[in-house]
Amino acid sequence: MATTVELDPRDLDERQLYFVMSGLVVPRPIAWVSSLAQDGTPNLAPHSYYNAASSAPPIVMFSSTHAPHRRPDGIKDTLRNVRQTGEFVVNVVDAELLEAMNATATDCPPEVDEFHLAGLAPAPSRKVAPPRVARAKAAMECRLCHLLEMGDATLVFGDVVQFHIDASIWRDGRVDMTRLAPVGRLSGSDYSTVERIQSLRRPAWTPD
Amino acid sequence: MATTVELDPRDLDERQLYFVMSGLVVPRPIAWVSSLAQDGTPNLAPHSYYNAASSAPPIVMFSSTHAPHRRPDGIKDTLRNVRQTGEFVVNVVDAELLEAMNATATDCPPEVDEFHLAGLAPAPSRKVAPPRVARAKAAMECRLCHLLEMGDATLVFGDVVQFHIDASIWRDGRVDMTRLAPVGRLSGSDYSTVERIQSLRRPAWTPD
Repeated sequence: MATTVELDPRDLDERQLYFVMSGLVVPRPIAWVSSLAQDGTPNLAPHSYYNAASSAPPIVMFSSTHAPHRRPDGIKDTLRNVRQTGEFVVNVVDAELLEAMNATATDCPPEVDEFHLAGLAPAPSRKVAPPRVARAKAAMECRLCHLLEMGDATLVFGDVVQFHIDASIWRDGRVDMTRLAPVGRLSGSDYSTVERIQSLRRPAWTPD
Repeated sequence: MATTVELDPRDLDERQLYFVMSGLVVPRPIAWVSSLAQDGTPNLAPHSYYNAASSAPPIVMFSSTHAPHRRPDGIKDTLRNVRQTGEFVVNVVDAELLEAMNATATDCPPEVDEFHLAGLAPAPSRKVAPPRVARAKAAMECRLCHLLEMGDATLVFGDVVQFHIDASIWRDGRVDMTRLAPVGRLSGSDYSTVERIQSLRRPAWTPD
């Protein structure tokens, strides 16, 4: 006999809410965001409250949770940089980059360059100043187009102005998912890699 | 020698942009959204440009792409219903529900009840009128809190007002990912199921 746990969010504290939300909205894509501080220090940090907002024109969005326990002003380096410079790059995380991505998820001070910290080479972007991760199989150069305060976070929206896609994952105008092997964020310290792909045709509507 | 395909979005048409965006922002969580038309007809449809926007308070968002080829006004049933009633439920899609979810991804007319179409029993919600999917292992009742036009879509934000979590996936205040077995959306007709979970501790920052 299945029983259902009923939870009213008003009865949960911040930590409990984080566990529930990050446990039920899964698997999440990861925006591994590179940006530049005003003094030119590169920053690289993963965000998984992230998705496409629009395909055509291409717009991505990610949520930067305010972190009062991590920064005096509660603002993470990525958000501060994007606000100040208006530019960022979303790097795609694949299975080979999982460990390096995790190394950049640390609470290090703003003057630390996470590229250096994780042993990652930067590669120049074409239209924005922040570099991309050279080893990433795909990256999207973005220009800030909108900011929105929402709950405990600031949502960052960016127009994609350039795509970089490794030729090894590109076939007939589409991304080869097996070769990309993207990583999904689950809850806590858990990640999933795409191992088995199921293809289901979307049914055409046929009235009885 | 790795070569990189460089794409300027201004050189791509709508279809090409959809392939690139849905191929690079992966794996995506699926909001299987139930809603009610003003005449009471239930609607159920998957949306994968979806994520949490905030954990505390809990807020979810999904993008409803305008579909001029599918509806005369370009507005999908879910968006019309949510605008008119201010309520919806996000049902979580697990491996056992993948086929049923796909059956609701069809372009059927607004008078069709996708619960019936897919052979799914509804279960009553507690705080909102739209029913949830009885077989879903988790569901979030939501009240519309914000709408935002963005590119080719309308973004729908909802305050989560009630969580339903099957006891079988709930352990010590957290979601058991192996038992939930969530489905991720890839591109085209492809889906991934969470099969192998990798756990990586987030490193603490330790200066040299």
